[in-house]
Amino acid sequence: KCTGDDLQLKHTWVKLNVGGTQFLTTKTSLCRDPKSFLYRLCQEENDLKSDKDENGAYLIDRDPEYFRPILNYLRHGKLVVDKSQELEGVLEEAEFYNVTEVIQICKERIKLRDDVHHQSNVK
Amino acid sequence: KCTGDDLQLKHTWVKLNVGGTQFLTTKTSLCRDPKSFLYRLCQEENDLKSDKDENGAYLIDRDPEYFRPILNYLRHGKLVVDKSQELEGVLEEAEFYNVTEVIQICKERIKLRDDVHHQSNVK
Amino acid sequence: KCTGDDLQLKHTWVKLNVGGTQFLTTKTSLCRDPKSFLYRLCQEENDLKSDKDENGAYLIDRDPEYFRPILNYLRHGKLVVDKSQELEGVLEEAEFYNVTEVIQICKERIKLRDDVHHQSNVK
Amino acid sequence: KCTGDDLQLKHTWVKLNVGGTQFLTTKTSLCRDPKSFLYRLCQEENDLKSDKDENGAYLIDRDPEYFRPILNYLRHGKLVVDKSQELEGVLEEAEFYNVTEVIQICKERIKLRDDVHHQSNVK
Amino acid sequence: KCTGDDLQLKHTWVKLNVGGTQFLTTKTSLCRDPKSFLYRLCQEENDLKSDKDENGAYLIDRDPEYFRPILNYLRHGKLVVDKSQELEGVLEEAEFYNVTEVIQICKERIKLRDDVHHQSNVK
Repeated sequence: KCTGDDLQLKHTWVKLNVGGTQFLTTKTSLCRDPKSFLYRLCQEENDLKSDKDENGAYLIDRDPEYFRPILNYLRHGKLVVDKSQELEGVLEEAEFYNVTEVIQICKERIKLRDDVHHQSNVK
Repeated sequence: KCTGDDLQLKHTWVKLNVGGTQFLTTKTSLCRDPKSFLYRLCQEENDLKSDKDENGAYLIDRDPEYFRPILNYLRHGKLVVDKSQELEGVLEEAEFYNVTEVIQICKERIKLRDDVHHQSNVK
Repeated sequence: KCTGDDLQLKHTWVKLNVGGTQFLTTKTSLCRDPKSFLYRLCQEENDLKSDKDENGAYLIDRDPEYFRPILNYLRHGKLVVDKSQELEGVLEEAEFYNVTEVIQICKERIKLRDDVHHQSNVK
Repeated sequence: KCTGDDLQLKHTWVKLNVGGTQFLTTKTSLCRDPKSFLYRLCQEENDLKSDKDENGAYLIDRDPEYFRPILNYLRHGKLVVDKSQELEGVLEEAEFYNVTEVIQICKERIKLRDDVHHQSNVK
Repeated sequence: KCTGDDLQLKHTWVKLNVGGTQFLTTKTSLCRDPKSFLYRLCQEENDLKSDKDENGAYLIDRDPEYFRPILNYLRHGKLVVDKSQELEGVLEEAEFYNVTEVIQICKERIKLRDDVHHQSNVK
């Protein structure tokens, strides 16, 4: 399991500007899922093709709040969705960034939620 | 369906200052609904007429929190409203920006919510 | 009803620094209620008397979160209170800024809320 | 009762950096409770002893979110706690800043909450 | 018990950039748990090894929202989790930063929550 002390190692830090909000992360986190768009974003050869803002942050035209659970998943492998957020919003971002495991987890949780809700209405 | 890799293409990025909060998006997103005020905002010929702040962001005198679901709808076509937000607040913004489909969805959800609430009070 | 296209007209933009948070609005919004403190704040002759920060924003020693529903009311005439906020907090700001209609609405909603709550306890 | 027009008077504005977040308030608000640490913070003779950041804001090593209800209490004398916040978190800050009335109110509300909860479990 | 007046003493202030959000704290808070990664982060000899941003803030590739309860615990020794946050998210950060007591408290609260939930489903 990854712990804080791994941060002692020099990392390649990556800045993202998601819909106007700054995020800071590492290439290691972004590369966790090789099928994801974020993996391709931080490949060296990509550097010239992608747009960046004046702080060197990659520009992404998406919601910052619903990006948080996606990025956190890439950091530690758990999907933590705040109680005020809707699973449908997380699913939408997971599909955009193409993080396959998060897509899967969201769909399962939505199904579970709707089944429970349906049951309690039937009773 | 639009995915992250489409961002690889060079986009025209647009900055918005909504009520004091910075948003970053693309002309593509803002132009999704041709009847919307946001469509007209980013037309070339409009450039001289609209006010901008010192960062080149278009000034809009509206609430930033309730603008988020509207902008996200233009990005991906789903209306995701956080559990802490009121549908009436989203409807108000949808009417201001004149995003017809969001107006429609809000009205349906408000009706559904009030019907359910009325039923459970009657029981 | 006011729509986005009215923004095409050149506005007098006003910056507010409410408790440390920047807000952007127009003189039109702030002048909606002539009895309000915000009306007097942006009168020309007032310009020298009120304190401003280094960005030219009027300084106001109040909470920014509970100012949002007040400002939004002045923008569009609906009082939208987030589910995580307390009506008492909105009332307190409405009284400070002296926005008479919002004071009225808050008091009605508080009464309604307490009546319903009382009824459900009595049953 | 204090209203917005009192702001017309020239105030001594005070900046606070609470855990990394900027707050703006006045000496009048901070001096409401003479027993509080915030009272002593803004006394003239204290000016050299306390640390400030590069913007001249007093540095305070505490949570910004739970400081909000404390500061708002000093501004208007009502304790407004958002529904997403825990009373225990507000109490902790009230004790740190030593705002006696807020300590008292928090303890009463916690007792009330726990009594109600206990009753409904007993029924 | 630590109170605000202790801040009168000159502190060693430490800036953290957690996932793109600035936090301000003191070496005293970060050193509360000697087994934690945050303890080692601010040791003098560590200064050259860890990455910092342009403001001199230590870079940490983690979520800022779920870091708040951890840092607050180091400040005052109480674990306060907002109602909108998930205990699992706090646990994940507690394990990353290796704050042993918070790990323990999170596990107990999760167990308690799940037991209660299970009971109410069985009834």
